[in-house]
Amino acid sequence: MHRMTAHEATATEVAAMRRALELAARGPATGVNPRVGCVILSPAGDVLAEGWHRGAGTAHAEVDALSHLGAGQAHGATAVVTLEPCNHTGRTGPCAVALLEAGIGRVVYAVGDPGDHSAGGAQHLRAGGVDVVGGVLEAESEAFLDDWLFAARHHRPRVTVKWASTLDGRAAAADGTSQWITGEAARADMHRRRALADAIAVGTGTVVADDPALTARDAAGRLLDAQPVPVVFGSRPVPPDAAVLRHPRDAVLLAGHDLASDLRLLAERGIRSLFVEGGPTLASAFLAAGLADELLVYLAPALLGGPRTAIGDLGIATITQAQRYDFTDVTRLGDDLLVVARPVTPIEGT
Amino acid sequence: MHRMTAHEATATEVAAMRRALELAARGPATGVNPRVGCVILSPAGDVLAEGWHRGAGTAHAEVDALSHLGAGQAHGATAVVTLEPCNHTGRTGPCAVALLEAGIGRVVYAVGDPGDHSAGGAQHLRAGGVDVVGGVLEAESEAFLDDWLFAARHHRPRVTVKWASTLDGRAAAADGTSQWITGEAARADMHRRRALADAIAVGTGTVVADDPALTARDAAGRLLDAQPVPVVFGSRPVPPDAAVLRHPRDAVLLAGHDLASDLRLLAERGIRSLFVEGGPTLASAFLAAGLADELLVYLAPALLGGPRTAIGDLGIATITQAQRYDFTDVTRLGDDLLVVARPVTPIEGT
Ligand SMILES: NC(=O)c1ccc[n+]([C@@H]2O[C@H](COP(=O)([O-])OP(=O)(O)OC[C@H]3O[C@@H](n4cnc5c(N)ncnc54)[C@H](OP(=O)(O)O)[C@@H]3O)[C@@H](O)[C@H]2O)c1
Ligand SMILES: NC(=O)c1ccc[n+]([C@@H]2O[C@H](COP(=O)([O-])OP(=O)(O)OC[C@H]3O[C@@H](n4cnc5c(N)ncnc54)[C@H](OP(=O)(O)O)[C@@H]3O)[C@@H](O)[C@H]2O)c1
Repeated sequence: MHRMTAHEATATEVAAMRRALELAARGPATGVNPRVGCVILSPAGDVLAEGWHRGAGTAHAEVDALSHLGAGQAHGATAVVTLEPCNHTGRTGPCAVALLEAGIGRVVYAVGDPGDHSAGGAQHLRAGGVDVVGGVLEAESEAFLDDWLFAARHHRPRVTVKWASTLDGRAAAADGTSQWITGEAARADMHRRRALADAIAVGTGTVVADDPALTARDAAGRLLDAQPVPVVFGSRPVPPDAAVLRHPRDAVLLAGHDLASDLRLLAERGIRSLFVEGGPTLASAFLAAGLADELLVYLAPALLGGPRTAIGDLGIATITQAQRYDFTDVTRLGDDLLVVARPVTPIEGT
Repeated sequence: MHRMTAHEATATEVAAMRRALELAARGPATGVNPRVGCVILSPAGDVLAEGWHRGAGTAHAEVDALSHLGAGQAHGATAVVTLEPCNHTGRTGPCAVALLEAGIGRVVYAVGDPGDHSAGGAQHLRAGGVDVVGGVLEAESEAFLDDWLFAARHHRPRVTVKWASTLDGRAAAADGTSQWITGEAARADMHRRRALADAIAVGTGTVVADDPALTARDAAGRLLDAQPVPVVFGSRPVPPDAAVLRHPRDAVLLAGHDLASDLRLLAERGIRSLFVEGGPTLASAFLAAGLADELLVYLAPALLGGPRTAIGDLGIATITQAQRYDFTDVTRLGDDLLVVARPVTPIEGT
């Protein structure tokens, strides 16, 4: 095989990157660390070893792959890896150093490391005489790492704010009753979508009023395998017998009323996506702070009028300050409509 | 031609009914009276005369058709007419009597007369020995007379309540500014639809705040030929220099705060369809009274929060009292959505 030293990957390396993405997908979809896969190729292009990351505290993909090789076997080999090798000593040593020490001659990666501490791996490798090519299958790999990259770049989870309301924007009748505004199809859709998030948030108001379990359940009410972390915002104490405290995952209680630092804390705990369930006060706080990356609005063909709006005050004084979104999807769900909207000016890098 | 005396129309009579519908369409689409067409056929099935109604105070379609015939020419002929001949003496004499006097032997009609005073024509004709067949091309004719029949049956115009709001149900920002919530495509659609109504209504609040002209204009701002009657609801006096008082048609001012009797009055003036433009107080009053036959909601992909909801109080205390509608149409208009909804339980006969 003709070995290129130019900044381009060979067809064999591109194929190995596809394989590395498959390996990456074997890792856990949630948590602090990204899912990464690695394939080590001989100078002739044969697969010498494969590896992937199994979650925080375990070996990184490159180190996992190298662990399958005997001493000297990686010498002059090519490491094909879905994320730029890290340059950071955490619970494991930096991958860039491990690759250099193993005598790897060339590194091909897909996505640059967005980490503040871990970036610089490519530079370190180049300084060590390694031939480095980045950006191979970059779009697929970015899409695969979507939520993790978002959280790593912005130091917060991607936030979906959901509400269910009547066509006139009410979330409950005057006496507070709201079961049910939307129909079964809409509620089932909402359950499906919330189960996909790393965490579900409510305010203490909803905990006190509804005592929600915040578990992801199937149509029969059985717990699903993956359970989003329950998060409660607010300073009022959560009652000791609250259902949320019996959740299979430990509830995170955030009493500081400082959404930016609360979200940073969630990201540090490995929460990449947050589903804000409500109530109106918490949802409005996220919206007012410009912290909604997506709106999911379940609109029922009903009118209620009265004081209980789904969204409260957003601190908007005049029409030019209106928050502008795009309707990215409108779907009929039974008798209801699901309207998905994203900010016209999404936060940088989304 | 074989003459049938059974309660069935011949193919020639059905063809004549189609022609009668064409003739009817030449009449004015608004006003107290329906659009009616009439074809008089000889016993052999040849067209002897045609007629149509040109609006209140002019001859009814049957009389118009008969006026083209010499004495005795209608003897034994068949009158094919889109609406049951009236039995009522108004500004003109009853058509049933005119047909009997002309010696008509058979009457074929499409839709029964819903009028309290004018109904009974078929019965009167039968009593006079005339062979009468009703319900021919009934569905087409009902659709053609839709708004007129609605108004005649319910003694009120068909009411469309329109509003434009953000996704969270606000019609204006906290300071009252609302130009513009929706985009050009939505506003153009709204102008097109309001021009189709017999009348446009606003409350005195909107007159005082916006001084609207309430004219139907094309995209260039030119007045269209057909102008809906401007209607202002409310007891506050309309300022003498208000634009609505310079409208090409006389404004109707309704100060009684009694929507049911106000609507009866409008129906008596020949208004079959009413487009309620707002503001929020008037729209909410129509909704609270259950007087909306159709909702047109222009939803902008924007959030405003705050106190200025598009719909105010509807007197609904608890969720089971929610007003339920069907979403009959959802259309993207530029960046906005138009949601059309009709009551789940429409008022009888709609
Ligand atoms: N229609 C829907 O989609 C939906 C969804 C969920 C709930 N609900 C209904 O909503 C009602 C509860 O409404 P709610 O508005 O009181 O509930 P909420 O939004 O769940 O809770 C409000 C509380 O959140 C806390 N909070 C934490 N961080 C905050 C921040 N940055 N800004 C403002 N508040 C913050 C405050 O609690 P502290 O005072 O303790 O600090 C505040 O009182 C219930 O009746 C429930 O049924 C409806
Ligand atoms: N977003 C939109 O689609 C839209 C459309 C139009 C207007 N607007 C805005 O709405 C604002 C005006 O709001 P508004 O609510 O004051 O205006 P409004 O609804 O036009 O007028 C309210 C007035 O209607 C009268 N009224 C007559 N019959 C009534 C009944 N049966 N029940 C209750 N009221 C009855 C009352 O006047 P009296 O006190 O004189 O009896 C009442 O004060 C303006 O700022 C305008 O720009 C928005």
